[in-house]
Amino acid sequence: MLVVMSNSATEKDIQRVAMFLEAKGFEARISHGEVRVVVHAIGVKEEVDQRDFELLPGVLEVIKVTTSYKLAARVSQGQDTIVEVNGVKFGDKYTGLIAGPCTIESYDQMDKTAQELSESNVKILRGGAFKPRTSPYTFQGLGEEGLKVIRSVADNHNMAVTSEIMDISQIEMFMRYVDILQIGARNMQNFNLLKELGKIHKPVILKRGLSATYEEWLMSAEYIMSGGNNQVILCERGIRTFEKYTRNTLDLSAIPVIKKLSHLPIIVDPSHATGLRDKVEPMSRAAVAAGCDGLIIEVHHNPEVAVCDGAQSLYPWQYDLLYKQIKQIAPIVGKEIV
Amino acid sequence: MLVVMSNSATEKDIQRVAMFLEAKGFEARISHGEVRVVVHAIGVKEEVDQRDFELLPGVLEVIKVTTSYKLAARVSQGQDTIVEVNGVKFGDKYTGLIAGPCTIESYDQMDKTAQELSESNVKILRGGAFKPRTSPYTFQGLGEEGLKVIRSVADNHNMAVTSEIMDISQIEMFMRYVDILQIGARNMQNFNLLKELGKIHKPVILKRGLSATYEEWLMSAEYIMSGGNNQVILCERGIRTFEKYTRNTLDLSAIPVIKKLSHLPIIVDPSHATGLRDKVEPMSRAAVAAGCDGLIIEVHHNPEVAVCDGAQSLYPWQYDLLYKQIKQIAPIVGKEIV
Amino acid sequence: MLVVMSNSATEKDIQRVAMFLEAKGFEARISHGEVRVVVHAIGVKEEVDQRDFELLPGVLEVIKVTTSYKLAARVSQGQDTIVEVNGVKFGDKYTGLIAGPCTIESYDQMDKTAQELSESNVKILRGGAFKPRTSPYTFQGLGEEGLKVIRSVADNHNMAVTSEIMDISQIEMFMRYVDILQIGARNMQNFNLLKELGKIHKPVILKRGLSATYEEWLMSAEYIMSGGNNQVILCERGIRTFEKYTRNTLDLSAIPVIKKLSHLPIIVDPSHATGLRDKVEPMSRAAVAAGCDGLIIEVHHNPEVAVCDGAQSLYPWQYDLLYKQIKQIAPIVGKEIV
Amino acid sequence: MLVVMSNSATEKDIQRVAMFLEAKGFEARISHGEVRVVVHAIGVKEEVDQRDFELLPGVLEVIKVTTSYKLAARVSQGQDTIVEVNGVKFGDKYTGLIAGPCTIESYDQMDKTAQELSESNVKILRGGAFKPRTSPYTFQGLGEEGLKVIRSVADNHNMAVTSEIMDISQIEMFMRYVDILQIGARNMQNFNLLKELGKIHKPVILKRGLSATYEEWLMSAEYIMSGGNNQVILCERGIRTFEKYTRNTLDLSAIPVIKKLSHLPIIVDPSHATGLRDKVEPMSRAAVAAGCDGLIIEVHHNPEVAVCDGAQSLYPWQYDLLYKQIKQIAPIVGKEIV
Repeated sequence: MLVVMSNSATEKDIQRVAMFLEAKGFEARISHGEVRVVVHAIGVKEEVDQRDFELLPGVLEVIKVTTSYKLAARVSQGQDTIVEVNGVKFGDKYTGLIAGPCTIESYDQMDKTAQELSESNVKILRGGAFKPRTSPYTFQGLGEEGLKVIRSVADNHNMAVTSEIMDISQIEMFMRYVDILQIGARNMQNFNLLKELGKIHKPVILKRGLSATYEEWLMSAEYIMSGGNNQVILCERGIRTFEKYTRNTLDLSAIPVIKKLSHLPIIVDPSHATGLRDKVEPMSRAAVAAGCDGLIIEVHHNPEVAVCDGAQSLYPWQYDLLYKQIKQIAPIVGKEIV
Repeated sequence: MLVVMSNSATEKDIQRVAMFLEAKGFEARISHGEVRVVVHAIGVKEEVDQRDFELLPGVLEVIKVTTSYKLAARVSQGQDTIVEVNGVKFGDKYTGLIAGPCTIESYDQMDKTAQELSESNVKILRGGAFKPRTSPYTFQGLGEEGLKVIRSVADNHNMAVTSEIMDISQIEMFMRYVDILQIGARNMQNFNLLKELGKIHKPVILKRGLSATYEEWLMSAEYIMSGGNNQVILCERGIRTFEKYTRNTLDLSAIPVIKKLSHLPIIVDPSHATGLRDKVEPMSRAAVAAGCDGLIIEVHHNPEVAVCDGAQSLYPWQYDLLYKQIKQIAPIVGKEIV
Repeated sequence: MLVVMSNSATEKDIQRVAMFLEAKGFEARISHGEVRVVVHAIGVKEEVDQRDFELLPGVLEVIKVTTSYKLAARVSQGQDTIVEVNGVKFGDKYTGLIAGPCTIESYDQMDKTAQELSESNVKILRGGAFKPRTSPYTFQGLGEEGLKVIRSVADNHNMAVTSEIMDISQIEMFMRYVDILQIGARNMQNFNLLKELGKIHKPVILKRGLSATYEEWLMSAEYIMSGGNNQVILCERGIRTFEKYTRNTLDLSAIPVIKKLSHLPIIVDPSHATGLRDKVEPMSRAAVAAGCDGLIIEVHHNPEVAVCDGAQSLYPWQYDLLYKQIKQIAPIVGKEIV
Repeated sequence: MLVVMSNSATEKDIQRVAMFLEAKGFEARISHGEVRVVVHAIGVKEEVDQRDFELLPGVLEVIKVTTSYKLAARVSQGQDTIVEVNGVKFGDKYTGLIAGPCTIESYDQMDKTAQELSESNVKILRGGAFKPRTSPYTFQGLGEEGLKVIRSVADNHNMAVTSEIMDISQIEMFMRYVDILQIGARNMQNFNLLKELGKIHKPVILKRGLSATYEEWLMSAEYIMSGGNNQVILCERGIRTFEKYTRNTLDLSAIPVIKKLSHLPIIVDPSHATGLRDKVEPMSRAAVAAGCDGLIIEVHHNPEVAVCDGAQSLYPWQYDLLYKQIKQIAPIVGKEIV
């Protein structure tokens, strides 16, 4: 930690900071610059709140120089984490693909969609059984019945399954039906849930919260990893900004940044980010060109009758076209779609 | 719902929209303006997604004209909701006060703080037993032991208790110790938790999410109310913006806006919003001057040794001074502090 | 400047940073912490771009510890700046008031409004002659004719005049008619204009840009002050956030923050911030309760027929009522309205 | 314009709205829905402020259904605008490239950079002579001398020139040296400057303001076009959000959105958006994959000694590599780099 003193700090102010630091267990090292004095606090104390120092007389600013995430940090391991499910790889030089409808509506809907997707080489099927809806008056998902449907359909097409979990009480149920558990943006800081998912042995897709910084996102991954589960896939799905024309603002810069800060794979959800089908294709191609480790895309065999989020779902033929485009883009940026 | 057609929409486009609306169960009424045609969809269908219409050829924009919150809406009842706990009232012409430390650390700490606060007429004590911390490596609260402490201390000083609940599994425990349950900003859209709190018979403080719009916030209140619990207190605690000098940006305009849209009381948490003690006082006074229905303020008998968020906690003497100031401001704006 | 090295930085990386710093004219002082090494760059070089160091191998982060604003900084002078115009004071313990319509429409309109305002003790009249409008197809103001009108009306009522300047070419004209020049939010970083206003001898109201940080705002004040004009009044008028219900989000925390960072007076424009009349009153009271040094409020003798922004203009009787309320609030927070 | 009445609006409220609309010159058409009444205002009146209606009793919301930009709107012409300079085309199926240093430092620097860039087929050279710097104490550019340098160097390498103009007084000078005028983000709403650039006969690159919505951006283009200059190129360069790790958040969704709303070409500046060299390459590729009409990229023959923004400048060999990648990506998305 670095405590930067203000121009007008007195010698007494500096000594007070040093003493206060030592009382908290740090070694205090004072460095005089041309304009400012900086006190370097040597030591790592998780519980220290830097604002306690900001309030001391003569202090201008306090800067933390240790990151709070450790296991998720790039420096913690020599190479990129690769998560592999059903032969699909996410991370390092691999770009994995996941597709399926927003919501599990019926066996027939899932089967038709899966049939079409399997022709485009999709090996991981997505679909929501428990839906976090802003309004209590809208469809909340089929529940366990939905999980049974997606499992059965996926088995028939040799696919793996991913679906969103909303509550700790659902973990046991999800372990029976699902291969990759998803944590939605609204639950990115549901710390009790994260801790429990640290104890399971299945991969977790952790979506970025609507207004979460990169650091907070990695800290949430750390919650899972510190419990013993290293199979975390980060998923950028748009952030909230002043621009309301698109549902959210897809932050593709997250790709190179996360790859610098962490060894974890980062995938992109262009469907929730943009909210409209005609934006999904260009943004998917852009994500691959930026070097993402995967995509999760909403596809419905007949979006016009979809119960939920049909407007952002691709038609299967659109997905197929997109698949062919990104297969060409990936090798240009040194990636492989398997 | 209103479907606004673009300048270049053809007669066929307009007819397609009308037919599509009728297929969804609406009556379609077409109105020709000087530049644009507007199709008014008569009827209310919760499940209709307006984006399905935005994607039809010739459509410029689709506008929902019904609000999704009903019970929380001002029009749903003739007068302001007043929540009363231990003689303290929130809502209508009353401004209620809640104070206490961020975290329950020990019996001694709670007792000393409560003793000082009772001298400033505080009748509702706050304190966290389960803490939602960004990092898994920091103190996570005393848990049930903490709830026992705050209950016991509050009883000794004739105070009521409020504390933050983080998970459905804790409801039964909280019902034993706590008079008002708090939902933190990170859980504002933990819909499963909201639904369960709709079934209890105690007031709930619902904090605004870091990037929640007014409408989403009221929709979350609606989740609780639709379960049968009308005792919801909304709490503004700052939103996330580009400005990082303060921890969050306290949005005091929420006060007059929420009072226009809803009958529910709105209180303000200046401690979490600003994150620094010297900003808590001016922002508390500002909130009262803007007509808020209450304040929840962090106070610690000795902030310098607080385990958590000491930097934003007032000293008891500061709280007392602030109390005297807001007692003077309230009547100027037609409010009463009881 | 502080260069924080990453965990994985080698001794060679550290030496490279030190050498690079010395090449740029700094003295490099290396400090070894428990986890990280920090290199303290001693010296002040305006032209150095900290990102040049961020790109060096092994560097985690680079932190500037000198603020770029000097004359605007609190430490640059012993006491608060007080700007006085026509007996009205802004700054230190004084809260000054400015009122008038958004736009100068006619002599009759200005005269009627000024007549009413003079009865509420207003001594500085506002009104726009050149309007920065988002659309080229809307009314752009009366121009110089408007300035003549406001000057003449103000003289008749013993008032001073403030109006917004948009371009360097207008300075000479404004010097003839106006007592305080306003720089609008869109021009906060029109550096050529700021430089020229540094050469005049009249006070300048500098509105905060829609997405300007506190530091950028103070840097813009520095542009004016470094030219020799110290009479700068900062004006908070709302920032752009994700919340669109209000026109902008009024950031009242700016008041205590700016008062900590700078000696310059800070006033608030609640009319542009909220955009609706019924929000102007509570936010004006809140601003005074938070300790602002002044208010600039839109008032029109007949808002319903106002050419521009009538919706956010108070009726004169509303202004009078508000004036009476804030006269009572100011002394509670140690301020005086003169 | 559509006036949506609240649930509790009375018949009298509805009639008042209708009368008020007619007084403003509209025809009022009342439509009764299941829950709400909507009044459709027939007619187009530029000067009407919708908030005047929002304040009437019983009104819930007022919605404008006409866009304010007309010439910039897609419907205003049958096909995409193509801007062509020195054989480089922007728009429709063409992706044009611009490269060069942030700042013109010397003849030698420009010549070396241009020499390298010409080997990568660059035909339009960028370089700033007047720099909008946040601090008054940093290098402000070489001024006219800089324009002479870039013109002369460009002529030697058969290149065209683009540079940023900051003030109306510079227009005549820029017309002598520059082929494409740039308007920086801070000047996007400098309406006086926009109006003057409407009168010239050279293309203008209009950068998006840091917090400008798509609509405001197109309205600023409209200012230029309404003066008679149709050669406007829009440039996305990142917006300001809560995420501070990158300098700005590059909003690539702007590409498909602008292409839907307007016929004008849209290019991307990945250098200013991200602020760091290692993010420029992935974001450039992403922009091309999303279908942009051009890129403007900072390249310096020796970034480590650049006076300004060296950290975000590519080395010439990096540019060359990037050029080869995007040449491959463009045809996959139906574009051509000429």
